Amino acid sequence: MIIDAHGHYTTVPAGLRVFRALQISQMGKPVKGTVNISDDEIRASLEKGQLRLLDERGIDVMLFSPMASAMGHHFGNALISRYWTEANNELIHRVCGLYPDRFVGVCSLPQSPGVSPRECVEELERCVNDFGFVGCNLNPDPSGGYWTGPPLGDESWYPLYEKLEALDATAMIHASATCNPAFHTTGSHYLNVDATAFLQLMESRVFQDFPRLRIILPHGGGNVPYQAARYRALGILNKWEPFDQFIKRLYFDTTVYSQDAMELLIELVGVENIVYASEMLGGVNTTDPATGRSFDDNKRFVDAISWLTEQDRKKIFEENARKAYPRLTISV
Amino acid sequence: MIIDAHGHYTTVPAGLRVFRALQISQMGKPVKGTVNISDDEIRASLEKGQLRLLDERGIDVMLFSPMASAMGHHFGNALISRYWTEANNELIHRVCGLYPDRFVGVCSLPQSPGVSPRECVEELERCVNDFGFVGCNLNPDPSGGYWTGPPLGDESWYPLYEKLEALDATAMIHASATCNPAFHTTGSHYLNVDATAFLQLMESRVFQDFPRLRIILPHGGGNVPYQAARYRALGILNKWEPFDQFIKRLYFDTTVYSQDAMELLIELVGVENIVYASEMLGGVNTTDPATGRSFDDNKRFVDAISWLTEQDRKKIFEENARKAYPRLTISV
Repeated sequence: MIIDAHGHYTTVPAGLRVFRALQISQMGKPVKGTVNISDDEIRASLEKGQLRLLDERGIDVMLFSPMASAMGHHFGNALISRYWTEANNELIHRVCGLYPDRFVGVCSLPQSPGVSPRECVEELERCVNDFGFVGCNLNPDPSGGYWTGPPLGDESWYPLYEKLEALDATAMIHASATCNPAFHTTGSHYLNVDATAFLQLMESRVFQDFPRLRIILPHGGGNVPYQAARYRALGILNKWEPFDQFIKRLYFDTTVYSQDAMELLIELVGVENIVYASEMLGGVNTTDPATGRSFDDNKRFVDAISWLTEQDRKKIFEENARKAYPRLTISV
Repeated sequence: MIIDAHGHYTTVPAGLRVFRALQISQMGKPVKGTVNISDDEIRASLEKGQLRLLDERGIDVMLFSPMASAMGHHFGNALISRYWTEANNELIHRVCGLYPDRFVGVCSLPQSPGVSPRECVEELERCVNDFGFVGCNLNPDPSGGYWTGPPLGDESWYPLYEKLEALDATAMIHASATCNPAFHTTGSHYLNVDATAFLQLMESRVFQDFPRLRIILPHGGGNVPYQAARYRALGILNKWEPFDQFIKRLYFDTTVYSQDAMELLIELVGVENIVYASEMLGGVNTTDPATGRSFDDNKRFVDAISWLTEQDRKKIFEENARKAYPRLTISV
């Protein structure tokens, strides 16, 4: 089985955008509202996009979460974030109900700047216990690029980590859109967030306090494999847990899009901590003129690495995803 | 000749710290003040540190600038930043006077949050024309990690670019310390700034408007070589100048500290746009237990790349630095 551990519902029907637009009109008095999307619209939104490509590329299952850039935690207050997040998660639940052998749910969290992550626990629990989701996306910067919140080592995050451990659920680090003109959402902000989260965790006690916590860094870890020697040196200078030990606390997904990067990633992190993912349809949804193939068609880079054994590939494509997401019980 | 294009005066005598500390006492009424450091103190601060290592490692010349983390543009107002920057640049000028065949000056700029980069032009001109410096360090985020200023494509930066072109001087992108607890100065902030600056420039008209502008990305470009395929895809999707064309607008320094990273960097960017640098004594000033050698002793990684010709190495170690810094006229 081939599992793609990182996909967002980027092809969402217009009804969800209508819901979002009305939130702007109702900022003063947020209401839950309803999302008007039919099952046929959901099917149409997926069958020409993600499902077609999963089939074409031989991928069996995708872990599927709400649009990441549209999480927009910076917009409005905690109640607006809650209603929007619930609507998105409920839509993912419908997707998984329509295609139970293709999509497994991952929720977004109702984060909001200045609001304790404790307030996200209830929605995480609902998505895992009631909907059968296997984890969540966790945004280390709900301000959207102004970085006004505490780092991931701050104890204000601990209620969320406690609940993740208690549920055996998994968090993928994932930013949303930036509202800061200094950044580009999928170009600089996402990658900065990945690298920043890595260092926040490395200089923290999080894994001492939550040894069973499972965290995935997306986008091949931002800059981590490339800058590994810098992190290794900083670990020594600051007496943190040694880099080569710390890196095994995390999983890295494979959403990088060149042969060189894929090799550096897997070599540096090690096979055991890599989960295959493409993040399609995502930020690189176009054709690479050098190869004539879509950038996010990245399984071929794993396939082409000569020093991986068949057992290594089985780990990367399936077994590690099951280790990283212990609630994932889907079978073919 | 071997030129190291990136070194900071991190071993500065205590007299400069005394000057800085007094700035806190005088925040309400900043005064220029004086720096009490003797020539002997300067010599002592360098001969056991940078000069010894330059000799040991066979490096002839270092481009030398004030401590980067201590630039501290976020501290105090524009006048405080000006006095502090002037004191630092004057000290670099003294260093270059004492060791004219070993150190070439690069200035810092009196940046300050919310203050137009136009206000930096005068100090740049002084350092280049009066002191013989060859360029400056440019901090894209003088807020120190809150990213409150406009991106590098904003026209408020243009007076600085105009002056750089007019002087034939060069800017290295370089952050200072972060005052935001979300970041680690040398671990996440520096690298985020490099990658963010890259994308700010890529989505801007800066090189259309200033085709002779010379900009260097330090720290091997943050994440750029590793994430090149993502940038390539974004260039296509956004109709920016194609990535492989844009990357030739910039120079990248070699301050990465592993064989893998050095090879990826030089392969991706291409020999013509690489300038050798070690940034010693800097953020990775410790011994790598895997090799028994200092992390920043990184010339060996360039030496070890089998597919580089002797002519390639000559470019990386000397000729490209002279292209990137046309004011650099030092000879052995």
